[in-house]
Amino acid sequence: MKRPSGRAADQLRSIRITRNYTKHAEGSVLVEFGDTRVICTASIESGVPRFLKGQGQGWLTAEYGMLPRATGERNQREAARGKQGGRTLEIQRLIGRSLRAALDMSKLGENTLFIDCDVIQADGGTRTASITGAMVALVDALKVLKQRGGLKGGDPVKQMVAAVSVGMYQGQPVLDLDYLEDSAAETDLNVVMTDAGGFIEVQGTAEGAPFQPHELTAMLELAQSGMRDLFELQRVALAD
Amino acid sequence: MKRPSGRAADQLRSIRITRNYTKHAEGSVLVEFGDTRVICTASIESGVPRFLKGQGQGWLTAEYGMLPRATGERNQREAARGKQGGRTLEIQRLIGRSLRAALDMSKLGENTLFIDCDVIQADGGTRTASITGAMVALVDALKVLKQRGGLKGGDPVKQMVAAVSVGMYQGQPVLDLDYLEDSAAETDLNVVMTDAGGFIEVQGTAEGAPFQPHELTAMLELAQSGMRDLFELQRVALAD
Amino acid sequence: MKRPSGRAADQLRSIRITRNYTKHAEGSVLVEFGDTRVICTASIESGVPRFLKGQGQGWLTAEYGMLPRATGERNQREAARGKQGGRTLEIQRLIGRSLRAALDMSKLGENTLFIDCDVIQADGGTRTASITGAMVALVDALKVLKQRGGLKGGDPVKQMVAAVSVGMYQGQPVLDLDYLEDSAAETDLNVVMTDAGGFIEVQGTAEGAPFQPHELTAMLELAQSGMRDLFELQRVALAD
Amino acid sequence: MKRPSGRAADQLRSIRITRNYTKHAEGSVLVEFGDTRVICTASIESGVPRFLKGQGQGWLTAEYGMLPRATGERNQREAARGKQGGRTLEIQRLIGRSLRAALDMSKLGENTLFIDCDVIQADGGTRTASITGAMVALVDALKVLKQRGGLKGGDPVKQMVAAVSVGMYQGQPVLDLDYLEDSAAETDLNVVMTDAGGFIEVQGTAEGAPFQPHELTAMLELAQSGMRDLFELQRVALAD
Amino acid sequence: MKRPSGRAADQLRSIRITRNYTKHAEGSVLVEFGDTRVICTASIESGVPRFLKGQGQGWLTAEYGMLPRATGERNQREAARGKQGGRTLEIQRLIGRSLRAALDMSKLGENTLFIDCDVIQADGGTRTASITGAMVALVDALKVLKQRGGLKGGDPVKQMVAAVSVGMYQGQPVLDLDYLEDSAAETDLNVVMTDAGGFIEVQGTAEGAPFQPHELTAMLELAQSGMRDLFELQRVALAD
Amino acid sequence: MKRPSGRAADQLRSIRITRNYTKHAEGSVLVEFGDTRVICTASIESGVPRFLKGQGQGWLTAEYGMLPRATGERNQREAARGKQGGRTLEIQRLIGRSLRAALDMSKLGENTLFIDCDVIQADGGTRTASITGAMVALVDALKVLKQRGGLKGGDPVKQMVAAVSVGMYQGQPVLDLDYLEDSAAETDLNVVMTDAGGFIEVQGTAEGAPFQPHELTAMLELAQSGMRDLFELQRVALAD
Repeated sequence: MKRPSGRAADQLRSIRITRNYTKHAEGSVLVEFGDTRVICTASIESGVPRFLKGQGQGWLTAEYGMLPRATGERNQREAARGKQGGRTLEIQRLIGRSLRAALDMSKLGENTLFIDCDVIQADGGTRTASITGAMVALVDALKVLKQRGGLKGGDPVKQMVAAVSVGMYQGQPVLDLDYLEDSAAETDLNVVMTDAGGFIEVQGTAEGAPFQPHELTAMLELAQSGMRDLFELQRVALAD
Repeated sequence: MKRPSGRAADQLRSIRITRNYTKHAEGSVLVEFGDTRVICTASIESGVPRFLKGQGQGWLTAEYGMLPRATGERNQREAARGKQGGRTLEIQRLIGRSLRAALDMSKLGENTLFIDCDVIQADGGTRTASITGAMVALVDALKVLKQRGGLKGGDPVKQMVAAVSVGMYQGQPVLDLDYLEDSAAETDLNVVMTDAGGFIEVQGTAEGAPFQPHELTAMLELAQSGMRDLFELQRVALAD
Repeated sequence: MKRPSGRAADQLRSIRITRNYTKHAEGSVLVEFGDTRVICTASIESGVPRFLKGQGQGWLTAEYGMLPRATGERNQREAARGKQGGRTLEIQRLIGRSLRAALDMSKLGENTLFIDCDVIQADGGTRTASITGAMVALVDALKVLKQRGGLKGGDPVKQMVAAVSVGMYQGQPVLDLDYLEDSAAETDLNVVMTDAGGFIEVQGTAEGAPFQPHELTAMLELAQSGMRDLFELQRVALAD
Repeated sequence: MKRPSGRAADQLRSIRITRNYTKHAEGSVLVEFGDTRVICTASIESGVPRFLKGQGQGWLTAEYGMLPRATGERNQREAARGKQGGRTLEIQRLIGRSLRAALDMSKLGENTLFIDCDVIQADGGTRTASITGAMVALVDALKVLKQRGGLKGGDPVKQMVAAVSVGMYQGQPVLDLDYLEDSAAETDLNVVMTDAGGFIEVQGTAEGAPFQPHELTAMLELAQSGMRDLFELQRVALAD
Repeated sequence: MKRPSGRAADQLRSIRITRNYTKHAEGSVLVEFGDTRVICTASIESGVPRFLKGQGQGWLTAEYGMLPRATGERNQREAARGKQGGRTLEIQRLIGRSLRAALDMSKLGENTLFIDCDVIQADGGTRTASITGAMVALVDALKVLKQRGGLKGGDPVKQMVAAVSVGMYQGQPVLDLDYLEDSAAETDLNVVMTDAGGFIEVQGTAEGAPFQPHELTAMLELAQSGMRDLFELQRVALAD
Repeated sequence: MKRPSGRAADQLRSIRITRNYTKHAEGSVLVEFGDTRVICTASIESGVPRFLKGQGQGWLTAEYGMLPRATGERNQREAARGKQGGRTLEIQRLIGRSLRAALDMSKLGENTLFIDCDVIQADGGTRTASITGAMVALVDALKVLKQRGGLKGGDPVKQMVAAVSVGMYQGQPVLDLDYLEDSAAETDLNVVMTDAGGFIEVQGTAEGAPFQPHELTAMLELAQSGMRDLFELQRVALAD
């Protein structure tokens, strides 16, 4: 088996995490997984949604979007259509759940973190790139919140979170699929994990034939191996 | 560990599949997983969406809804709000993908199957009940389509599909969670499988702590064991 | 003249009112007028709309919906279309006005009753079935409100309300039209009355030729005769 | 009993019908029922809605609106709110049904008539004024359509249609209620009739106490008496 | 060069400003620029938008609409489409900015003025007619506000504001274009000025060829000359 | 007078135009006016809007958006709000008109060019940067269209178009305002010009006091002087 990208089955794309990418957001990251490029910002607003008021804890919510021409064919702008599509909502719900798992909300104070992931250029794996990059923007935003005196009782980050896709391509498990590989894969599996090795989300879909238990196992192992590199890349980026 | 429902860890709720539940739809099923009750209809319309026109194949699409008072607290009616929520879209996309996996679209002719899953009463597991019940409604609708001469080239059903939820509850894997169990579970995993034992969808979410690889394995095994009963229940229902 | 249904001109369809049809709502009724089946729930929420705040009285509001395949042809789901149609709004406004006429709002406390009427299967007369069934769900919900101590100053039900359709079919007045009769009727008249014999709503529409004053009189008399049975059916259902 | 308006119980307001009120529409009328003023236009477009295509007949559809400050309190502009309210939809459906009853669609050719009724100033009875005025605009538009050679097989107007409100005010039936009377009336009844004396629509609503059969009879008689004047006013306007 | 309207290049259309055109609004004007007719109302509501609360100043906001058949071809009703178009929003933003420039908000108290400009008949220049007429309605509404004791600290009107269009037509600057002229003009320039001769808004658009600096200068001078008449017309109308 | 930016009154910000910024669009430019950064893409689709079908000419349409955190305060995502705001629509209409003025539509064939301008970081002048950058993306896209054989009859670019803002700041005309300057300016004027020195759009707004004719003249001259540099920057970028 040869991957269209020429990569080894367990090889991530070239990944770059650029902090302070825009100047207004408390945290702002450009994350690149190969040709997939996503701007991730983390914004702080004081106050929490109504259902949490008065409980002394914070909240995190995420939104996801794609520039109309981030893809090979132009997509209609969701703002012009008047609604976000099902795929968009599904992805932003996933990003939100994943990053909330990184935080201890009781240490945030009554603040809300807005995560915005906007895909500038898509080449497969936009949701996993978004989660991986937004985690870094989130850490940066929390530093700002701390400097402003908005944090009491220690670091709200319980654990780092990152994500990667794996899939079955021509009968073999492969890591971090680009668009060409994704389009041809029999199975697509997105995995969100913590740096301690726990799973936050596992979402696998048979695109063609069903996948077998041993294939699921193989894909999960591949995801775990890639995860080590992702957490290292986050650490290096944050150490700059 | 004692489940709130008093069931054994690997015990499904009482499940009933009532065919011909309403008179207009080509396929119409009331599916009950304990107190969760969903009306699943399968409707046939000739023609296919624009992106498939002229290719000689069919399509299946699904929609999901909940009566406003299907739940403990009344939910605002989505038709009155003017849009379907993210959870609704996520679920109906899952139902659609799952049932499309059951079919060979090239044998459908240029017909579209609309699956509607409407929750009359919710008590956990509405998406898995929907898939399991809608599969039966789909088979019934295809019989009607065959009688009308709309099928050429054999049965479009490649494989039966069913779904069940599993979760980690007080550190133990449990099958087919009801609402009380679901609310307290540490992990929630929805599994869609074929009667040949392949996976169509695996969607696991850590609600509290991350879940470990061995827990994922245990949950998947539990799902597989429950699946055998679900396929048997479908078979019995269709044999009536 | 022979009705398509074979019924006598002044004969109601077989009518059934099943209480406690679902478990979450304070009042929950399945009402059946022949093959027309509607789930009516009455839900209590504390608080009133803004325009009533601080006046010490309650409110009742109603919503109406149809499952997409409640009818012979599938209708597009209103939640997916992004708005409720004119027919839906017209019917839910009628249900709301009719049931408000049953209540003394000053005895409700600052509570709001939400009436939801969802048509599971349609065969003509869904609005009249909805009103007749929702009245029973409303009484049940008020019992719950009373048990919770939410009622002060006596029973808020001033009078029972029920509804029925009449029409001119082949030149003769007929009671409680099913879909086939309704489609062929020259005139369609929906009548909402109280158990004391007063009119709450009278809505007559010439579908083909205009109707004459004596025809209107004959239809109204037929409606009044049918109404006696409807109030008896409500009483029997509530006496269980 | 003294009416707030000082009119006799069976007295219409001063009614004026001004044709050719604006220059672009094929038919354009300003109708005034006392202080209620409505611009009614009838526009011709070739073609019919999809469900009528190829059947060789025409169609008529109506829309209704109110300027935000047509009323004592400013109403939010429906275009800004993003949807038409239930009252608006209810009224425009009534106008459409009423005027369709005036026409023989098979004589229209495949043309659609758009009726627009826009309330410039509201003082009660806007829907009945709209129907009465739009009927005149419709006749004018049909003359234009005839001149353009768009009519085959004779006059599509089967009968003239007009509308008026009646109500119970302090226990007595009164004709053509203005806003003050309408607000205080116990019952509000809108009646649409043909010039041959048939009913097209009868819509009565108990605002406070239920109304009795003899009150309904009295109100209907009053409506019939007022109708004679309305048809005469239409005739005079069209004879100019 | 001969204008289609036969007017001299620097000649306004016949302009009429009719005050108290409808009875409910605090200020209500029918403004006519030739065949362009716009109803402008100014409504007072106590309170201000959230972003101004507690600052002791007032606000003014404007909305613009067109009856569907104000134009040669019927336009779809924006309320029925579910949104206001870009042109509508652009115009109402212009009206709002222009009239806010007339006022000293600190003298309004915490009141909001709603300006509604609804085009009854369009023949070019609806936005400039709207501004010119709404200024008069605004003055009338402020008189009412003063009578109600809502004004403290003197007249909030800093300066009168009016607007007119100019354009290049067959190479020559012309004033106050009607629809025919506007459609054929090479450039369209809308100018909003104060009675002291300052500019509030200048919006010029090349419809065909670009316009040259000296053409812009000529058009601006023409606008200024027309403005003197407009302010005189406003003064005369207000002196009645 | 000292500008907050420290620039001379007639000095542009540092401007950069980066071509081929993303890989999918036929033309893709990152344009930077100081800290204002906009991604401009030009996409080609065959076919034209309905109103142009069969006329053998092309079309260009533009859309504009801002990432939620492009600004100092996070703005609600328009896709999530369900509609584009008035400012967005106003800007995208301006961009569309401006770029259409650059083209001879009869030389485009029946193709549509979609211009998307998405603001990554905002610091004043986003609309003028968008026009200036999108012009370059447009030229690149037309080269692709030509290579694909989609252009007949020569280059559709009649003239280059660019845009810049000018304003009155502390009584003096200044060029190319950044956000701080813009917020404090008395007048804001956006100017779109062709490389032959003609005006396409002139949009001036008095933010505080009205502006005088001589101020308008001074601002326009300043815009013209800046325009020379902008066209040079476009030429250099395209020459790479």
